[in-house]
Amino acid sequence: MPPPAEQTGSPAMTSPAPRRRPGGRTARTRRQVLDAVLAELAEHGYDGLTAEAVATRAGVHRATVYRRWGDVGGLLADVLDAAGDDDWQPPDTGSLHGDLAALNREIHDSLVAEPPVVAALIAASFRSEKAELAQRRLWEDRYRRCEAIVSRAVERAELPPRTNARRLLVAATAPLYHHLVLLHAPPDPELPDQAARTAVLAATAGAFAEPPP
Amino acid sequence: MPPPAEQTGSPAMTSPAPRRRPGGRTARTRRQVLDAVLAELAEHGYDGLTAEAVATRAGVHRATVYRRWGDVGGLLADVLDAAGDDDWQPPDTGSLHGDLAALNREIHDSLVAEPPVVAALIAASFRSEKAELAQRRLWEDRYRRCEAIVSRAVERAELPPRTNARRLLVAATAPLYHHLVLLHAPPDPELPDQAARTAVLAATAGAFAEPPP
Repeated sequence: MPPPAEQTGSPAMTSPAPRRRPGGRTARTRRQVLDAVLAELAEHGYDGLTAEAVATRAGVHRATVYRRWGDVGGLLADVLDAAGDDDWQPPDTGSLHGDLAALNREIHDSLVAEPPVVAALIAASFRSEKAELAQRRLWEDRYRRCEAIVSRAVERAELPPRTNARRLLVAATAPLYHHLVLLHAPPDPELPDQAARTAVLAATAGAFAEPPP
Repeated sequence: MPPPAEQTGSPAMTSPAPRRRPGGRTARTRRQVLDAVLAELAEHGYDGLTAEAVATRAGVHRATVYRRWGDVGGLLADVLDAAGDDDWQPPDTGSLHGDLAALNREIHDSLVAEPPVVAALIAASFRSEKAELAQRRLWEDRYRRCEAIVSRAVERAELPPRTNARRLLVAATAPLYHHLVLLHAPPDPELPDQAARTAVLAATAGAFAEPPP
């Protein structure tokens, strides 16, 4: 299950919620600092995000933040890395279409959530190379977990064996990011289901079938 | 036909080449300034882009730049508006798949071009509301022109009438932007054709058919 969404909007493919695990003082400090990054990002956006403000909000020494995270890019990267350190699993509804539609609804909700933390993290990945690399790691991890959706569909004989799971998952999810993140278009409540249905129709027609080895 | 690509990498959906039209002194100044914006953006990225440097490179008074464009956001917005003021038309190859694959190759080339002007403009749309609105206007214009691809396919009976052109075009093109812009993944030379083929298979299966009115 995704981590609690009350603070960050929502989890799904881009969950920024640091894992709430028990731990020692170091883990507690990390949690406080990453929570503070999210709160500052939500309030002020990337341009207003400073290591000083994060330290103040987290109640830790500024020197600790600089020593451990370096700069704003390092803080954002750790937020993204922490987001991947959870036990999120993709939806398992019993059908390919159901799984992809549920996944897309999670993505949709995370992208339109207020405050727009996920959108802000994606935007930050254009500003900081550390954040960009961490965003890529997180997406890589999420797409890898989502391959279960495709392998279950193959097992149910909904899809041909040797279906390229990654291409299918990108085809199913890309229209949401395109619409909401790049086109900055208003939310379209039909899009999650529509994009899922499109991917299923294409997949069923063999769009993602790999040639035999 | 798209505008000359020698300076900006490539045209397609996000062409940043200001139109080379004859004109008076005002048009000439605009052209010099917008060329300077592109050159500065290519060299220094958004963070290094200043109205002062643009004025110096363009050989115009700083006061002229401030009076006419206001700030960096205004300059970028005008670059994007000028990019839409051309006679670009989508490819017309005789088949839906051919048109979408050729369109996707244009998009792919524009996104991997060096210097990465198109990618920088997309990134800038996360920084400046003026640039964001202009980027939306440009995309809106490009998608509207591309609807000809779909209407020609309907005329050829490749697609059912009442196919939702916009959804089809977003499905065909979104994986490229997702892969190259958001996932920051290395170029995939098969993706333009693959994404086109996926959209055609889905469209042929009725994925974008609207219910009768």
